[in-house]
Parts: sequence; structure tokens; C-alpha cells
Amino acid sequence: MVRIRRAPDGLPAPDDFELVTEPIPEPGDGEVLFRARYMSVDPAMRRYLPAPAGGPHPLGGTAAVGDVVIAGPPPPTSGYTGGFVGEVLASRHPAWRAGDLVQGGSRWQTHHVVPGDSLVAVPEGGELLHELGVLGQPGFVAWWGVRHVAAVKSGETFVVSAAGGAIGMVAGQLARAAGARVVGIASGEKARYVTEVLGFDACVDRHVEPVADALDRLCPDGIDIYFDNVGADTARACFDRLRDFGRYVVCGMAGEYNAREAETGPPLRPVLRKRLRVEGYVIYDHYDEFPAFRSEVGALLAAGDLRYRYDVRPDLASAPDALARLLQGRNEGKVVVDLGADA
Amino acid sequence: MVRIRRAPDGLPAPDDFELVTEPIPEPGDGEVLFRARYMSVDPAMRRYLPAPAGGPHPLGGTAAVGDVVIAGPPPPTSGYTGGFVGEVLASRHPAWRAGDLVQGGSRWQTHHVVPGDSLVAVPEGGELLHELGVLGQPGFVAWWGVRHVAAVKSGETFVVSAAGGAIGMVAGQLARAAGARVVGIASGEKARYVTEVLGFDACVDRHVEPVADALDRLCPDGIDIYFDNVGADTARACFDRLRDFGRYVVCGMAGEYNAREAETGPPLRPVLRKRLRVEGYVIYDHYDEFPAFRSEVGALLAAGDLRYRYDVRPDLASAPDALARLLQGRNEGKVVVDLGADA
Repeated sequence: MVRIRRAPDGLPAPDDFELVTEPIPEPGDGEVLFRARYMSVDPAMRRYLPAPAGGPHPLGGTAAVGDVVIAGPPPPTSGYTGGFVGEVLASRHPAWRAGDLVQGGSRWQTHHVVPGDSLVAVPEGGELLHELGVLGQPGFVAWWGVRHVAAVKSGETFVVSAAGGAIGMVAGQLARAAGARVVGIASGEKARYVTEVLGFDACVDRHVEPVADALDRLCPDGIDIYFDNVGADTARACFDRLRDFGRYVVCGMAGEYNAREAETGPPLRPVLRKRLRVEGYVIYDHYDEFPAFRSEVGALLAAGDLRYRYDVRPDLASAPDALARLLQGRNEGKVVVDLGADA
Repeated sequence: MVRIRRAPDGLPAPDDFELVTEPIPEPGDGEVLFRARYMSVDPAMRRYLPAPAGGPHPLGGTAAVGDVVIAGPPPPTSGYTGGFVGEVLASRHPAWRAGDLVQGGSRWQTHHVVPGDSLVAVPEGGELLHELGVLGQPGFVAWWGVRHVAAVKSGETFVVSAAGGAIGMVAGQLARAAGARVVGIASGEKARYVTEVLGFDACVDRHVEPVADALDRLCPDGIDIYFDNVGADTARACFDRLRDFGRYVVCGMAGEYNAREAETGPPLRPVLRKRLRVEGYVIYDHYDEFPAFRSEVGALLAAGDLRYRYDVRPDLASAPDALARLLQGRNEGKVVVDLGADA
């Protein structure tokens, strides 16, 4: 397991963590022991780390130094997916038996003892990686945001940041399928990937050109929908270019998770004048729609109409670096850690 | 008529305007001459005045020094109400004849020659003042914001600023009729009026207590809906107290119309964390719903379930002062100017 050795100051560094080994506990009544095979690495994990100065965490983090790193909301969170996929080793819960493939867990470790009620079954024939990616929480977040928050209309200009990331890849492709012109914002190789492989109409490469300049060139008539995964300056450049009746979907703000809470955001006068809607959402509120998402996005994937890729890091020891890379945008696709199998 | 003598710097002053008399033009083909009886005074009128330094107006104003003051969007704006109510003197448009009571006009003057298509009929038996107030544009703005943007649910806490103003009076009463607990923000006498006469549950008196402190006392569990008519610090105090799934209705920002465009607004991190929706609207987009508004609010008014009051200023010469009073919150109800009748 990975414990927090000290509170990171800004970007998490390898020395902020330590890999430790502890005996595997026995599951109690109603609990399940499972061995995780893959672990999801998400920008939101940054938010659970403690603040450097102690005291209340500016991002709402609840972990303390010495804790095992938090991967997501603690179980039981009904219907929560994300975290880990793996195989049940022992069960004292009637719904599970050894060998079942499951999704769950909320701490950076290979072996998990959790309430059986907090686990989700991997569907028959399910591809384990997809459960953490395109058919799991990142895909669901993208689908909800595009379908229920953005309300994309054909012919609109849809801009998505972190376009080559776990959520951005799906959001852009779903918006394009809905008839929008899709412009990504990404860096380096990812900017090429989303246009050449995923079929985005264009992509700003943040390493090549200032985002604002590129948007003036690529979206001379402005932006109808900005799907924000990063916050900060990139988001402001998009906000300033929203057209009348524009929507600003606040999905994530990975570029700000290393910083303390910002004091200010964009001005509201344009919200009035341009009739904008700025709306945030948290996917845990919407799990009753998970089956609808699986059905729709699963069909697109099976038909070859949706593409996705994973950036698989080698082992649990690489998890801190994987998180730091992700927060810096140095990932190439959805980041997961391969936890291997027991010898 | 009232002409702009110089561009106001901040709050409009009487010397920024001059009252002049000119010959009344004849209506051309398709046009109507009408004599206005009442003129509406609205905070948005500030936005049409020119900028002091010349150059582009920070609020989008289009008038120049020497122009007659703009009361609202120029005709023909289909379905636009507001501006003036009065009586047709001469018509060269088939829909109108002398003696008809109409609403229209877009400049600060007693006699208006406008396209006949830009006029709206005052309904049979209509009370002229109500056409500019509770059953006119201010009432419509409030109704749309409460019904279609705020989506008030029973038991929610609804806070409205400029609570004793033309829009706030209606917004608060409609929210209360929908089952919300309604807390106003106003100053002095208006704070008492909205609680004692309009039945608001509470009202912050800005002259007595800082808004933030009063909200902590009156809304200890936070705010579900903030209906903004003023912007600036008051809006920020409300934004910071929004609860999960809160809505921030950007209806108007009268407190900021004297200032240049703000560079920043509230931070967006809480929009994500608390799943907020911040949404602006402009009523000119929604005139197809005007009959539904008239029907519903007219019935409430007729049944005595909705109350309203007017702050009637004496003559056209008093219009600049009436606008300045309104922008300072020194009005007591919906501000109108009584233009009298011709001798």
C-alpha cells in the first residue's frame, strides 16, 4: 500500500509517499477481500491529499499524513465505480464468491477488504481496463456532461480541454457524434492523437501556441460550449470567447488542484449580456443513469464508433509518479496502474 | 425630450442631461404618432449612455452626446414592452387609430413617432401603470427568472436583491407562492415594506447590517437560490453562501452599471464542488411566453395575492434624477415618470 509520508506542497512528489507492506486483514461479516489488478489514477485524487500547513484543506481533502492514499469516496458509496478492478479472494457477503471480477476499493493498495455492498460486478465478458475508462467512471462523467449539461446541438462549436485525457477523449467524440464541430485543447502528441485518431475537427497544442491565440484562429466566431477539465487560464480564454447562449460545463479543474482555492473567477457581466449558463456537476449524484450510459457508449464502442486509449503504468510504486504526470498533462490517455498478480 | 449633454462619469448627474423642445414630426407611411403618459425608468437605461472617455462603451452603450436618451432597444423590436404607455394621436398604420392606448417608444420624450409594428396594445381595461410594472416588462422578467431559470422548489431558501424594486417585488412573491422561504435584500424603508406588506419571510436592511453578517444570521444553512438584481459585493456574499445544487440567477446587475466592466467574478471551484448553476437571461429572447405570464400574474393580481407599488416622479425634467435615485436604491417601488397630458 502507499501511505502519505508528508503533505505535498503543490505538485505531489515521490518523496511525499512511501510504499509499505502490511498483513492482509481477514474480511469480517458482510465484507469481501479482493485483489486489485488495475488501479485508476484520477486528477481528483489530488484533492484528497492533506494541506501542507495542516488545518482545513483548501480543496476539501480529508486524508492525513500516515494515511493510505485515498483513491475516491470511501465505501459504501452506492454505485460508485472507479478505483480498482480485480478478483474476489474471499467473501463473507452473500452476493460475492471467490473468483468474481469486481470493481471497488478506495485506497492505494493491492488488497482490499471492503463492505460487499460497496462492490460493483464487472459484466460478463467485460474488459477490465474499460471498466476503469471508457465504460467506467471517466466515460460516464463525459457522457453525463455532454448529454445532460452541455445539451449539444448540431452545428455548434464545442471546445474541450484535456482533450486527450480520460474524460476529454469521450466528451469530444460524443459531441462530434451529436453534430458539433469539436476543437480540443491538449499538448504535444495528444493534440495530434485526438485529431488524427479520434476525429476531432481541430486541436490547440498548448506547447506550440498560446491557447487564446489558437482559439481566435480556430474559433473565429466564438465557442458555443466549453467543456472544462482544467480550469485556470485555459478556462478563462474559453469563457471570454463564449457566444450568446453559450454553456460552460464545469466538469473538472485539474490544472488548479495543486493550488489553493482561487479567490475569483471570470466576470459575471457577460453571463448576463450573453445569456450564458455555467454549471458544475459531480457524477456521484447521477448513478441511476449509469445503465443508460453503459448501454449507449458500449454500443458505440462495439461498433467501432468510439476510440480510447490507456496509459498503463507498471506497478503500485509508480502510482505517485503517475499522478504527478497526469496533473502535469504528461499522460497519453487514461492513466491506470497495473498492479500485476500475486506470485 | 431629454438629450445627453455630456457622458456621465459614474452615477448620472442632472447636468449630464438637458431638456429641449423640438417640433413634433408627422408620422410617415406605416408610422404612428403617440403621446406618452408614463415613462418607465429602468437600471438598464444606464447601459445605453455613452462612456466618458469616448471610444467603445464598457457596458455596450451605443448613444452619443447630443442624442436623445435611449429608454430601451430601438423599434422595431418584436413584442418589446416597456418604455412608455400613452395614446395614439395620429396613425398611418392600419392597426392603429387615434385614441388607442399603446405601449412602445424608445427615447426619453413625450411625443413618439415609431413604426406601427413596434407598438403593443394596452389590453381593454388595462391599468396604464401596471403595463409598465407588475404586468409589464419588470413583472415578466421576474416571472421568467423564477419559473424558468431558478426552478424554485418548495422548502428552498430564495434570496433576492433589490427586493423592493420593480423586479424583486414580484420575484420574491412568486418564489414564496412556490413554497420557498424568501429573504430579501433591500435598504431602509423597502426592507420593512417587503416583509410587512409583501409577506417576505425576512429582509436584510443594507443600511443597518453588513449583508454577509445578516445572511449568516437569516440563512444559517445557506441559500438555495440567489436571484441577482445588483451584482457586486452583495452578489458575492450570496454566491459564497450557496448550498449544494444552488442556482444563481443573473437577472440584473444594477449596482455595477455605473462601473466599467469587472475583470473577475466569483471563483468557479465551488461551482464544481457544490454543483452550482449560474445562468443569465435577457427577457427579449422570451416574448413568446408573454401571454402565459400575463395570464398567470394577472390572475394573482386580480385575486389580491400579489402586491406592487410605484414610485411616480412628476415630469420629464425629473427623469435624470429618477434614474440616479434608482441606481442608488433610493426608489420606493417601480420608478415611473408621469408625463402628464397636453394642455
